[in-house]
Amino acid sequence: MVNVRIFVTYKESVFDPQGETITDAIHSLGFSNVKKVNVGKFFDLQIDSSDKKVEEVVKEVSEQLLVNFNLETYRYDVMEEA
Amino acid sequence: MVNVRIFVTYKESVFDPQGETITDAIHSLGFSNVKKVNVGKFFDLQIDSSDKKVEEVVKEVSEQLLVNFNLETYRYDVMEEA
Repeated sequence: MVNVRIFVTYKESVFDPQGETITDAIHSLGFSNVKKVNVGKFFDLQIDSSDKKVEEVVKEVSEQLLVNFNLETYRYDVMEEA
Repeated sequence: MVNVRIFVTYKESVFDPQGETITDAIHSLGFSNVKKVNVGKFFDLQIDSSDKKVEEVVKEVSEQLLVNFNLETYRYDVMEEA
């Protein structure tokens, strides 16, 4: 079994309203030294890699389901063999 | 400037409906070798750490704003000095 973490973030060119809102909220808490906040999501997948290659599964699952390529980009880490 | 990534995940004891739904969707795409999916979010903070210690800022910001401790837990990585 392989554990993979897929990170999905907004593309650089895309405005991150949630990040901006959180930055303002953090400033209102008095932490003006927090200059910028970006928000992302990640998916932890447990993959039984005996038949299909992990890279293949990650690519297909990300492209078909997890990532909106108009706005988002992704990368992944193979965490460790479980 | 220090870049910190704060990972927020559901506590082990909390049911992850999104993760279950995504697992089913992945199976319907034909990837039955994906055994389990957990979903999380992360916050990338750029912190000017000249006055306050990074740990202090991360703790306060997480506890006061970013994490719902009834359901979630968090950890963070100091990514690198920007």
